[in-house]
Formats: sequence, C-alpha cells, structure tokens
Amino acid sequence: MPRPDRTTVHRHPERADADPAVLRRILDDALTCTVAWADAEGRPRALPTIHARIDDTLYLHGSRAARAWKTAAAGTELCVVATVVDELVLARTSPNHSMNYRSAVVYGRAREVTDRDELYAVARAITRHVLPGREDDAIEPGEDDWRETLLLAMPLDEASAKVRTGPPVDDPDELALDVWAGTLPLRTVAGTPQPSPDLRPGIEPPSYLGEFRRP
Amino acid sequence: MPRPDRTTVHRHPERADADPAVLRRILDDALTCTVAWADAEGRPRALPTIHARIDDTLYLHGSRAARAWKTAAAGTELCVVATVVDELVLARTSPNHSMNYRSAVVYGRAREVTDRDELYAVARAITRHVLPGREDDAIEPGEDDWRETLLLAMPLDEASAKVRTGPPVDDPDELALDVWAGTLPLRTVAGTPQPSPDLRPGIEPPSYLGEFRRP
Repeated sequence: MPRPDRTTVHRHPERADADPAVLRRILDDALTCTVAWADAEGRPRALPTIHARIDDTLYLHGSRAARAWKTAAAGTELCVVATVVDELVLARTSPNHSMNYRSAVVYGRAREVTDRDELYAVARAITRHVLPGREDDAIEPGEDDWRETLLLAMPLDEASAKVRTGPPVDDPDELALDVWAGTLPLRTVAGTPQPSPDLRPGIEPPSYLGEFRRP
Repeated sequence: MPRPDRTTVHRHPERADADPAVLRRILDDALTCTVAWADAEGRPRALPTIHARIDDTLYLHGSRAARAWKTAAAGTELCVVATVVDELVLARTSPNHSMNYRSAVVYGRAREVTDRDELYAVARAITRHVLPGREDDAIEPGEDDWRETLLLAMPLDEASAKVRTGPPVDDPDELALDVWAGTLPLRTVAGTPQPSPDLRPGIEPPSYLGEFRRP
C-alpha cells in the first residue's frame, strides 16, 4: 500500500495552496510555531518555539538543556505548525463563522546546525524574523552561546499550506437576516517600548521598534 | 517505573505556573490552538483549530468530515498547545533575546459532545471566545449543523502553563554596550470591518467589532 501523503489537504481541499511562495510567506508571517513529535511511548508531545526560514529550509530555535530538543535533534519525526489569522469571518449564523487564516504544516526530521557560518546566519535570521532591523543592532552570539542554544534545520520538502480568504458564506435563505456579516481584519502591533531598568542612560529606542506590524 | 509526568516543566522550571487561573487565562487569551496526535504509524500530526474554555473543560471545534477529527473523537491521545506572545524581549546580545510569552499544554483524550444543551453552550462559548458580544448577535446552530460540526471536550486535568515576564537578562559585563534593551509590548487589534458583498443595506457594524483586542 503506498504511504499516505500527509501533505494532501482532505478537508476543504479548495483551501490548499501548492504555491511555495505562499508556504514561505506563512512561515515568515507567523511569529511563533508549534513543534509536535511522538514520545518513546508513542504519545503526542508539542511545544511552541520561534523559527526562521532561509530559502527552503525551516530553522527551529531550541535549547540543549531541554529533553524535547534533544529528542528533536536526534532525528525524531517532527510536525511543525505555523498559523496566521488575517481576519475574523463573521457570518449571520453561528456555524458559518470562520477565520481567514493561513496555516503551514511541515513534516520531517531535523538536522542539527553545526556549521559556524550557518549557525551565525540562522541566529541573525531568527532575530530578523522576530523584529526586522534588530539583527543589525543586537550583538551576535559568542562561541560560548552554542553550548546552550540548539538550532535545527528542516527542509520544506514535505509541507502543505492551507488558506481561507473572502467573505462569510451563508445560505441564500439567511441573507435576509437582520445580522451584520463581513470580515474583521486583525493585525498585531507594538505598543510603547519599555526600557530595561538597567538600560544605560542616553540610549534612545531604535526606530524599527515602531515598525513592528504583523501580518 | 512510574509514568513520567508530562506536565512537569523541566526547562526553565521557574517559568512554570501551577495556578489554574493562569492556565485558564492563557486558553482564553489565545485565539487559536494547535492540536497534536500520533497517527496509526506513530508519526506526529498536528493542525490548528479554534477552541473555548468553560470552567475546567477545554472544547475543540472540528469537522465530522475530517479524518483527523474522527481520529480525535475516537479517543486518541491529544496534546493541545495554546500560546500568547505578550512582549518581545530585546536584550543587548542576540542569544539573550526572548519573548514574554504564556503557553499552555493540555494532554488527554477527548470525548465528543453529544448532549444538546452542552452543544449549544459550547457553540456559544466558541463564538464568544473569538469575539465577545458576537454570541448574542449570531443566529444559533440549527439541528442540521451538528451533522457537520464536531465538538470535543478535554478536561484540564493534565495540563501545564509556562510564563515568562520581565525585562531582558544580560550579563553584567554587557550592560555597558551601546544597544537599546527592553521589552516591546504586542497586542492584536482589529482594523476596519469589511461588510459582506451580500450584506442587506441598512445594517451597521455592531459596536463590539471595535472592541476586539488581544491579549
């Protein structure tokens, strides 16, 4: 029997988007992701982490001290989910409510990044992923930092993207109902920067802090 | 050998928060969650969905047509992760960057909600979870809707919460560096409501649309 293709979208197949640019964009827009694996007893485990994408490789940020990340680095199969909610979809009836979301699911095994150039490039990409501009400001890792931080790489070979767009879909006989229907766009924005209590006087908040906006 | 306790936080144990109110609040603040399970071959699978909490029960919204949800309804072990990012934590050095996040991990098996009163209460709770106020406006499900929608219930018996708060932590010898350090609060806000193209004229956007704010 052929191996079932995990990347085929069975539910709402019209929402599947095979364009690699869509997948990449979801991974870039999602601030965090969730990494799932099966433990030695076959039970599901999952945790959130931060990530970054370079070309068609997904990088995950982990800790050497964490058992979960040791398991991941040992080549255990992983399933990574990244989700972006663009809009709430408000239909007239409760069951027709939805979200205009974009989700990516990436399957595979990860390799530990060990090459020095790749390590530094990934550290920079993760900082930039979280806050563009910060990667030029923050001091890059020292050699000692790699004793604690673990960076993992997963190819985007086995991955799927699912996207919903557009207005709510109500039945024709519901259109006359006296209920507002439409979409409510969401975005994540930054508030006022809070300087660290130990910040040296005279250092002003950098301008890129005010430019944070997602998606 | 005793069964390992999956809810013990091993990495950064100081971030573990055993207060049930903290766990409940994370589930309430997270707009979506990720549900993970192991498939018949023991491989990890995961997908995003919406949820709601009533007392100490987590409810998940699924579809009867989806194989994944049939698997979940059949009593497969699940691991549900909900994550809220409150602030970016910007340290002077790249490896000391972090996020002030709150994450919940819930383990267990789900039961399908079949009781009519519970079904309607959960449908209302999910609508309210996404957008408070909407649950009084949207038309409640009809009997036919339960043929498509699947609602699952998981107790919060085996769950953990992890919370980071506070400023970045840099080494004493890094405090003199010429780099801004502090936290950047994030919040998700709503933009301008987009009426559905088929909206009946004369229906104004309800006021609760302007009150969406998370966390």
